[in-house]
Amino acid sequence: MTDKKTIRVVVAGPRGRMGSETIRMIAKAEGLDLVAAIDHNHDGERIEDLLGVAGLSGRVYADSDACFSNEEVDVLIDFTNPEAGKQNLQKAIDYGVRPVIGTSGFTNEEVKSYRSQMNDKKLGGIIAPNFAIGAVLVMKFSQMAAKYFPDAEIIELHHDKKKDAPSGTAIKTAELMMKTRESKKQGAPDEKETLPGARGADFDGMRIHSVRLPGLIAHQEVLFGGKGELLTLRHDSMDRASFMTGVYYATKTVMDLDTLVYGLENILD
Amino acid sequence: MTDKKTIRVVVAGPRGRMGSETIRMIAKAEGLDLVAAIDHNHDGERIEDLLGVAGLSGRVYADSDACFSNEEVDVLIDFTNPEAGKQNLQKAIDYGVRPVIGTSGFTNEEVKSYRSQMNDKKLGGIIAPNFAIGAVLVMKFSQMAAKYFPDAEIIELHHDKKKDAPSGTAIKTAELMMKTRESKKQGAPDEKETLPGARGADFDGMRIHSVRLPGLIAHQEVLFGGKGELLTLRHDSMDRASFMTGVYYATKTVMDLDTLVYGLENILD
Amino acid sequence: MTDKKTIRVVVAGPRGRMGSETIRMIAKAEGLDLVAAIDHNHDGERIEDLLGVAGLSGRVYADSDACFSNEEVDVLIDFTNPEAGKQNLQKAIDYGVRPVIGTSGFTNEEVKSYRSQMNDKKLGGIIAPNFAIGAVLVMKFSQMAAKYFPDAEIIELHHDKKKDAPSGTAIKTAELMMKTRESKKQGAPDEKETLPGARGADFDGMRIHSVRLPGLIAHQEVLFGGKGELLTLRHDSMDRASFMTGVYYATKTVMDLDTLVYGLENILD
Amino acid sequence: MTDKKTIRVVVAGPRGRMGSETIRMIAKAEGLDLVAAIDHNHDGERIEDLLGVAGLSGRVYADSDACFSNEEVDVLIDFTNPEAGKQNLQKAIDYGVRPVIGTSGFTNEEVKSYRSQMNDKKLGGIIAPNFAIGAVLVMKFSQMAAKYFPDAEIIELHHDKKKDAPSGTAIKTAELMMKTRESKKQGAPDEKETLPGARGADFDGMRIHSVRLPGLIAHQEVLFGGKGELLTLRHDSMDRASFMTGVYYATKTVMDLDTLVYGLENILD
Repeated sequence: MTDKKTIRVVVAGPRGRMGSETIRMIAKAEGLDLVAAIDHNHDGERIEDLLGVAGLSGRVYADSDACFSNEEVDVLIDFTNPEAGKQNLQKAIDYGVRPVIGTSGFTNEEVKSYRSQMNDKKLGGIIAPNFAIGAVLVMKFSQMAAKYFPDAEIIELHHDKKKDAPSGTAIKTAELMMKTRESKKQGAPDEKETLPGARGADFDGMRIHSVRLPGLIAHQEVLFGGKGELLTLRHDSMDRASFMTGVYYATKTVMDLDTLVYGLENILD
Repeated sequence: MTDKKTIRVVVAGPRGRMGSETIRMIAKAEGLDLVAAIDHNHDGERIEDLLGVAGLSGRVYADSDACFSNEEVDVLIDFTNPEAGKQNLQKAIDYGVRPVIGTSGFTNEEVKSYRSQMNDKKLGGIIAPNFAIGAVLVMKFSQMAAKYFPDAEIIELHHDKKKDAPSGTAIKTAELMMKTRESKKQGAPDEKETLPGARGADFDGMRIHSVRLPGLIAHQEVLFGGKGELLTLRHDSMDRASFMTGVYYATKTVMDLDTLVYGLENILD
Repeated sequence: MTDKKTIRVVVAGPRGRMGSETIRMIAKAEGLDLVAAIDHNHDGERIEDLLGVAGLSGRVYADSDACFSNEEVDVLIDFTNPEAGKQNLQKAIDYGVRPVIGTSGFTNEEVKSYRSQMNDKKLGGIIAPNFAIGAVLVMKFSQMAAKYFPDAEIIELHHDKKKDAPSGTAIKTAELMMKTRESKKQGAPDEKETLPGARGADFDGMRIHSVRLPGLIAHQEVLFGGKGELLTLRHDSMDRASFMTGVYYATKTVMDLDTLVYGLENILD
Repeated sequence: MTDKKTIRVVVAGPRGRMGSETIRMIAKAEGLDLVAAIDHNHDGERIEDLLGVAGLSGRVYADSDACFSNEEVDVLIDFTNPEAGKQNLQKAIDYGVRPVIGTSGFTNEEVKSYRSQMNDKKLGGIIAPNFAIGAVLVMKFSQMAAKYFPDAEIIELHHDKKKDAPSGTAIKTAELMMKTRESKKQGAPDEKETLPGARGADFDGMRIHSVRLPGLIAHQEVLFGGKGELLTLRHDSMDRASFMTGVYYATKTVMDLDTLVYGLENILD
C-alpha cells in the first residue's frame, strides 16, 4: 500500500452527514491531506468557515472541473447524489484523479463504461454503496464459514422504530451464505412450534430472527453450530460514523489499484 | 445460616444420574457429611462399592425406616420417583429429618398436607422440580426487571434435537414477566415481516425466538430495552450437573427453615 | 402506584443536558404533565421558546418560591447543582411538593435533616446520584447472585478515551457483591500468568477486567460460574439518555412514598 | 471437491479418545466408508467388538502394512502417537494412501521430506496439530480483520482448573494478528490502573484478558473497535468432539490435493 507520501483529497458534498464526517476524519488521519471541497453553493469559501470547524485547511470550489484544474489532487471522495456523483466521477477520470464514490444508483452498464475508461488509463477507483467495513467483514466471514458449518442462524437486532423484518443486511448475508452453504433444512425433522413464529423466518432451511427494542441501534449476529462447538460473528453499529474506517481504507487502497472496483468487499482480503 | 456444625446427609436414589452426582458433590462439599444411602436393591453394601468411587463413607439401607432408625440424620436428599419419594418424605417427617425432594408429581393437596405436619413439628424442608439455580435466578431477575422495562424479548437457544419451540423455560419466564410487565404490543406499530416468522412468537405483545443448532446445549437470554440502554440476563447450562449448586444451597437452607417450601425460587432472596 | 391522575411536574435546570432530556421525556410520557420550569435567567419565557422545541406547555420561573406559589405542583425534578438543588429541595418541602433530586453533594447529615422534615409531613421524595436504572439493576442482581455463586468475574468495557481502570461502576458492583459473596481466591490455586496482567485486577479474590476500544460506549458484564452452568448479567449504556427510565420511575414512585429515600436502588424491588 | 464416490477410510488408534470419536463420525457421515482400523493389540477383531458399538463395519489389523496390502484404502486417519504416526505415514505414502495425521511432534525437516515424496507421487495429505475448525477460523478471521481494525482486545475464558494465562490459543491468535495489525499502543495515552492488572496483559500494545470460572469450558472472543462500530469473533468449544468437523473436512479435501499440507488453516479458504 502506498503510504510513503501524503494522499491529497477533495471531498464533494461537504455539508452532508457523510461528507462532513469524512472531512473530520481526514483532518485527524495520518497520511491524508484535505486540499479542497466541492459544493456548488459556496464557491470560494474556506472549508473551516463552511463547517464551522476551526483548523481545517482548503477552500471550496463550485464544481469539480474548476477544482481539479486548480489543485493537485490524488483522490476524490464523493458523497453527493447520483447525478452529481456521475459528473464528478467523469471529471475525476478526465483529470486522472482516483474516485471513491459513496452514492448508489449506478447501473451495471454505467459501471462497465467507467471501468473501461479507467482501465485504459490504469486509474484506480471504487464505488461502494456501503462503507461499514465491520458489517461487510461479517458478511464475508459468514460466507466463508458457511462452507464448513452448514448449520447456521442469523439474529439481527434493531431499534423498535424499524419497520421491516428481517433487515436488508440479514437477507444479503443469508444470500451470500447460500453460495457456500450446503442447502439443508435445519433443526429436528419433527420439530414443532407451540407458539407460531418461534423458530423465526425460513431462508433456504436456515433461520433468521429479528429483535426490535428501544435502546438497540443496529446489530447482527451469525451463529454457526458444529459438533461440540459454536462460532459466532457479530457486528454492532453504534452510530452512523461507522462507515469512516471503510472510507479511510478505500482512500488508501485506490492509490494502488489500476481499475474500478464495485463494492467494498472486493478490496478486502 | 447454620454452618457451624456439619450437616449429616442421606441420599435416596444413589445410582440415578441426579443421585450419583449429589453423592459426588457431598463428598467434596465443606460442611456436609454423607452418612448413608437408600437403595432397596443393595442393602448392606458400602456406598463406595455401589458407585465404584473410592473414598466414599457410609452404607446402603434398603429402606428409609431402617436407615433413619440406625443413623443420626439431619437431611434426606431424595432423587427417586414420585411413589418412593412420598414414602421417604413421610418417614423423614416421622423421624424429624429435613427433606430435600427433587422428584415432581406432588399435588397441591399433598404439599399442603405434608406442610401441615411439618409446621406442627417446626421441621424445615423443600420440594423442588428444578434445582438449576442459575436458571431460576434468570427467571426471578426477569420478573423483577420487567416492571421497569416493559420492552423485552427472549432468545432461547438449544441443541438441534429439541422438538418443541419455544422451550418450557422460556414460556415460564414469559409468564412470570407478565405478572410485573405492563402489557403492550412491542415493535413499530406498522412493522412488517417480509419473511414470515422473522419477529418470532408473540406472547402478550412480547417476542420469543428459538434457536436450534448442533453444538448448543441449553441457553436462554432475556433482553430488556430502554431509552439508550439495554439490560441482558443470560443463563448457559453446559451440562446436567448444573443443578448441584441448587441442591447444596437447599441442603444448607432447610436447616434454618421451620416449614415446607415448594419451589427453589422461594428460598432465594 | 398512583397512576389514576396525572402528575404535575416542574423541572429545575431545563437547559442542562439532563434537564432538557427530562423535559422531552415528560412531553411524551403518559400520566405526566409539564407545568413549569425553573431557570433564574429566563423568567417569564415559554419553555418551548427556551428549548426551541415546539409543542411544550408551561412557563419559566426565576425561582422555586415564585413557581410553587403560582402553580399546582406535585413533583419537582431538579438537575441543577448542589447549592441550587438544596434551596429548591427546601422550598419543595415547605410547599408540600415531592422532590426528585439528581444532583450529588449531599452529606449524610443533610439527608437526615431533610428526611426528618419530610417524615413530619409524610412527604415522599428521592435523591439519586445515578438514575441509570439498568446499571442499578445489574448491581442489585449481582449482589443477589453472588450469594449463590461465589465464583464471579467482572468485565467492563468502555471507549478508549477513558483514563481510569477499572470503572467506578465495576468497583461499586464488586463492593456490593462482597456483602453477600463468600470471600475466596478464585482460579486454580497454582495458576500462573505467562504475560503479567492476563488474569485482571484482584478484588477480594475475584477478578475485574477492563476493555478499552473505540466504538464502545459504556458496558458491564458480570459472569457467575457454577458446576456446569454460567449466569451472565450485562448492561449496555448506548447513550446518555439512559437515565430517563429511572427518572420516570422515580417520579411515579415518590407519589406513594412518605419519606425521603437516598439512592435509586432503594425504590427498586 | 471429489464427492461423487465414497471415500474408503482406515483409522489408526481406534481406542483413543480422538480415534473412537472419528470412527463414530465416519459411521454417520455421508460419503465416508470405514474399511478397517489399525491397532497392534487387537489383530483380527471386528471394530464393533473392539469399541462395543453395534453396526460398525470393518476389521482390525495389527499394522498398516498388512492393512494396506489387504484392503482398498483411500485415506488413513491417524490419531496414534509421534512414532507410530511416522511409521503409518510412511506406509501410507508407499501404498498411495492419502494421510490425515492428527499427531504432533513432526520437525520441519521431517515434514519437508514427506512432502517431497508425496509431491513425486502427486499424493495429497495433511498433518494438523489442531482440527477444531471453528477455533482455526476465528484465528484466520482475526488475522484478516486486524488489518482494518488495529484496535483489538482478546478475552479468553476457560474452566478454573486451567493453570496458564493467557491460553496458548490466545497467544497464537495475537501472533497471527500481529502480521496484519499496524503496531500501536491502545487505550488512552494517559490511562491509569487504579487496581493493577485491570487492563490485562500487553501484547504488542494490544490487551489480552483471561477469565477462569467453573462452568466454563474453552471460549475465546476477539473484539475489534472502530469509530462507531464493534466487530466480535467468538468461538465456544463445548466438548472435545469439536475437532470432528475439521477431521471430516480434511478427509474430503485430501482427495483433491497433490501435496502434503501442514496446518488446517492452509486448507481453509
